[in-house]
Amino acid sequence: MERHVDQELKELNKDILKMGALTEEAIYKSVEALKNRDKEMAESVIDNDANIDKLELEVDEKCIDLIARYQPMAKDLRLIATGMKINAELERIADIAVDIAQRTLELVDKPLLKPLIDIPKLTTVAQNMVKMSIDAFVTGDIALAKKVLLSDPEADELRNVIQKELIEDYMLKDGLTAPRAVQLLLIARFLERICDHATNIAEDVIYMVQAEVVRHHPEKLRDSE
Amino acid sequence: MERHVDQELKELNKDILKMGALTEEAIYKSVEALKNRDKEMAESVIDNDANIDKLELEVDEKCIDLIARYQPMAKDLRLIATGMKINAELERIADIAVDIAQRTLELVDKPLLKPLIDIPKLTTVAQNMVKMSIDAFVTGDIALAKKVLLSDPEADELRNVIQKELIEDYMLKDGLTAPRAVQLLLIARFLERICDHATNIAEDVIYMVQAEVVRHHPEKLRDSE
Repeated sequence: MERHVDQELKELNKDILKMGALTEEAIYKSVEALKNRDKEMAESVIDNDANIDKLELEVDEKCIDLIARYQPMAKDLRLIATGMKINAELERIADIAVDIAQRTLELVDKPLLKPLIDIPKLTTVAQNMVKMSIDAFVTGDIALAKKVLLSDPEADELRNVIQKELIEDYMLKDGLTAPRAVQLLLIARFLERICDHATNIAEDVIYMVQAEVVRHHPEKLRDSE
Repeated sequence: MERHVDQELKELNKDILKMGALTEEAIYKSVEALKNRDKEMAESVIDNDANIDKLELEVDEKCIDLIARYQPMAKDLRLIATGMKINAELERIADIAVDIAQRTLELVDKPLLKPLIDIPKLTTVAQNMVKMSIDAFVTGDIALAKKVLLSDPEADELRNVIQKELIEDYMLKDGLTAPRAVQLLLIARFLERICDHATNIAEDVIYMVQAEVVRHHPEKLRDSE
């Protein structure tokens, strides 16, 4: 028989999926705005962030209420605590999409340096990592969470390549490119930070699942209980 | 009479103060290393981060155990949940100190651009904000938390001034300064992100205290209960 708390935990999954969908949309739109020099789209990312902030607070509040009302035991408690952490990570990712949109607004009126180097590629990596990390939470899929961790070095590498190219091929050769090159360099770093947040989510999922496994072997927990 | 849970909540405060002290030390040393071109000190910040990560996990685990064992009601639960969030923020701040130390290692062998512009000033702002935000949590001092929020625009402004100076007075005038100027620009942004994390902590403290006030007025909570 399904417990009432199970129904509420399903609702929590739905909330996290909704936070994830809004966050993924913000990333997508912020980089589309950059690609298409679309000022309105960049502004829409900035304007929409208040809705994501609001949803984050609601989900956080729901989690606290859930713990207070059901006084859940270890496994459910860990799930809710992980949900709260992921909720916060997603809100931070959405904030970074706003950072990208703001850098984009600095660039829309200026000629492009060149077709954005590897920024679209890094964006795809970031989007996939965020999507996989949320799916890993919702399904408790530890293999998928580990796949996210394995993607992170690629993101670091792409960011380094972009940074090196912007410094060596642009700023060093022609100082006048610096204001635009700095904006692109920051956008590459923002995208890589999104990947770091996805990595945090994946680590939280692994910890949630593995601590649960440990909890099935109480002899391993002697020190902490 | 003091409840047993009160004793454990005091321990949680001590843990947060310890995380705070280690984090403040990491910020201090990372910037001292930059000022004094001290490679060993930069490396010590990077090496010590594993200890902070370990403490963060321990505190997190303690919080979950505390909730599971005492099944605390609203006020204590909110305190513990806020402690978990602040613990995570402090770990992120320590990670940023590592970022600063890594950028410093890129700079130690190269001639300084000039005596670090306003970076020492921004560092002082960041250190004060972190310190005040932790004190606000431990004492539940909402006025102190609000003081942290009021400091954030100063941090943004200092970062913008540093960034503008590095681009306009260095990179634009002499492209050869770009590799060093970019590192300093990133360090300024890292320091400003530390201020953002302190702001997050202060906001969490305000929310913790104010939500409690709201909870004393159940008519305001009709929609969420």
